[in-house]
Amino acid sequence: MQTGDTLRRLREAKPLVHQITNYVVMNETANATLAIGALPVMAHAREEVEEMVAIAGALVLNIGTLSPDWVEAMLLAGRAANERGVPVVLDPVGAGATAYRTDTVKRLLDEVRVTVLRGNAGEVATLVGVAAEVRGVESIGAADGSAELARTAGAELGLVASVTGPVDHVSDGNVVVAVANGHPLMASITGTGCMSSALTGCFLAVNRERPLEAAAEALVAFGVAGEEAARGAKGPGSFHVALYDSLAALDPATLDAKARTS
Amino acid sequence: MQTGDTLRRLREAKPLVHQITNYVVMNETANATLAIGALPVMAHAREEVEEMVAIAGALVLNIGTLSPDWVEAMLLAGRAANERGVPVVLDPVGAGATAYRTDTVKRLLDEVRVTVLRGNAGEVATLVGVAAEVRGVESIGAADGSAELARTAGAELGLVASVTGPVDHVSDGNVVVAVANGHPLMASITGTGCMSSALTGCFLAVNRERPLEAAAEALVAFGVAGEEAARGAKGPGSFHVALYDSLAALDPATLDAKARTS
Amino acid sequence: MQTGDTLRRLREAKPLVHQITNYVVMNETANATLAIGALPVMAHAREEVEEMVAIAGALVLNIGTLSPDWVEAMLLAGRAANERGVPVVLDPVGAGATAYRTDTVKRLLDEVRVTVLRGNAGEVATLVGVAAEVRGVESIGAADGSAELARTAGAELGLVASVTGPVDHVSDGNVVVAVANGHPLMASITGTGCMSSALTGCFLAVNRERPLEAAAEALVAFGVAGEEAARGAKGPGSFHVALYDSLAALDPATLDAKARTS
Repeated sequence: MQTGDTLRRLREAKPLVHQITNYVVMNETANATLAIGALPVMAHAREEVEEMVAIAGALVLNIGTLSPDWVEAMLLAGRAANERGVPVVLDPVGAGATAYRTDTVKRLLDEVRVTVLRGNAGEVATLVGVAAEVRGVESIGAADGSAELARTAGAELGLVASVTGPVDHVSDGNVVVAVANGHPLMASITGTGCMSSALTGCFLAVNRERPLEAAAEALVAFGVAGEEAARGAKGPGSFHVALYDSLAALDPATLDAKARTS
Repeated sequence: MQTGDTLRRLREAKPLVHQITNYVVMNETANATLAIGALPVMAHAREEVEEMVAIAGALVLNIGTLSPDWVEAMLLAGRAANERGVPVVLDPVGAGATAYRTDTVKRLLDEVRVTVLRGNAGEVATLVGVAAEVRGVESIGAADGSAELARTAGAELGLVASVTGPVDHVSDGNVVVAVANGHPLMASITGTGCMSSALTGCFLAVNRERPLEAAAEALVAFGVAGEEAARGAKGPGSFHVALYDSLAALDPATLDAKARTS
Repeated sequence: MQTGDTLRRLREAKPLVHQITNYVVMNETANATLAIGALPVMAHAREEVEEMVAIAGALVLNIGTLSPDWVEAMLLAGRAANERGVPVVLDPVGAGATAYRTDTVKRLLDEVRVTVLRGNAGEVATLVGVAAEVRGVESIGAADGSAELARTAGAELGLVASVTGPVDHVSDGNVVVAVANGHPLMASITGTGCMSSALTGCFLAVNRERPLEAAAEALVAFGVAGEEAARGAKGPGSFHVALYDSLAALDPATLDAKARTS
């Protein structure tokens, strides 16, 4: 892992990251994408998703406020991404909370070759049949065994599983990388999970050959930005603002020294 | 009313508050819900709203950017909430501005048993046939007689009417509680009305037996947060940020001393 | 041009500005509209757009996250605006990126009499057959010849073309006004282009007889606010917050002295 180097290349390449995501966080993930140095584009119409993904460096699918038309668009975009070798990130927001969410994620996993699945422990556990406590779309409490969960999900689903929480675990079913960067204030605002998926897309776009690394690098970068934003924050509002400032201010030269990975 | 005690219970219980709301404020109401200590979930697909509301502590319906599919989802979710005893908040954004909004609110009131109707004076007046000036979705000017309006709406519609403005009035058709907390800067950003409806849902979720109290307590808590956020704010942008910090920082031990109710 | 005077009239009249815009920026354009002193209303249902636009001072159409239902609503609202003499702003977000976006903008221009077309150089160039580099929806790099582009677009399309970039150029096909206000941080957050379109609607609503002036005045006001917000900003997050504070703090008495137009 060379997060600083990947970030440097990201800012030079300014990849376009196509996001089909939820209504709650669109502005937030677009701004996080810009702050890290990439270009976001949101487009969900069946009439254009295939054409849009063809010019993108990565595709991010997020089911946070799903409905049938949007699911169709995700399937179309995902298949087009697969045909063109564009990496795909899937964020299974709320999988386990309703059958519709769980079934939709399974359908997406069946019909689209997903590069990185980025979710919280409850969501990922649902998808591999491990018991988990899920309440709505917010992750609650710490997940013991999330390293093993990431490995299981990576192996069973044949992708890179990126399970975020107090400590994140990223695995391709074989290697497990733990990322301990981050700050509890990140759980105090909505959309930080979705932002981490968007940033995973940004890093994947410039590190396609090493999706395990790219996924972990995105979490290191986001976690370090979260740590720096927490300094001086008075609560969730001021933390949220500082998070964009910190993402934009990330210094590739010092980033690897701040990584807390194992 | 014991706003501090209800807030303390809210933070312990962390109720899930299901919101079917408008595109403009989804991020804002989700973050206000998190800041007060509850968990938001946005879900609007007919395929999942009944299942989602079944695990929620309250349902908040908001017609700010309505369209037929969303209205159907609100009806489904509202009826499912009624069957399970989940309290329902309705925010009639822009009622009176177009026939579609007015008719939709009337249909929702007909087909769903609403616990609290939270709107501005113009919106609520429209629903009980009182003359009112409505321009778009923003409340303009002070409303004389909003105490009487709240009482009339509460009695005629058989619910708790929560009419917000420079001074808020909450009534079950019999008792009227006036809440004078708040700050003019709250009218300088979009979505504060919608946030107050979301917070009403949060308080209702832990104070179901006393919806009149819960509605007034939500306005006290939000108003006190607004007053504290206004200190040091340089305008609507910095006020907006401070509002989330202040919501999260509300101290149950001192909250009742700051309430300006009568 | 008398930006200060127009702003003074805007704040007195508080025009209602009807916006059919994209999911990413709705909250942002609503807050920018409020901060400048007007009233925003978002409404996109076919059931109500004609009635809503009839009470509005201007209509803003923005295709940032378009889909067929929304395009139909834009056509309905646009025609109703034309019938009633309500000025129309069109923001062709991402025109050139996909055929669907380009075709939709052409259809809107065919079927609706647009008063001001507000876009970046790539988007506007696409519509008049000039070669341009477009990547997704973000404007990239400086556009040489944007003065000539604005003039060409104004003449060919028979409207006021407002081409924004490092220096903005506004033209009715004859006169070209250059606006050099603004700050590079405005390109660091999503939605500033969309906000400038919303503000164009606000100024048009109170300066209908002089759309060229109104369009340029909106860019002066927004650019000056951007310059003032940049002071003390630590990055895109704090700049974004300060932008609303600065819009609300704009002083009509000193605004013209800060204008950098030619």
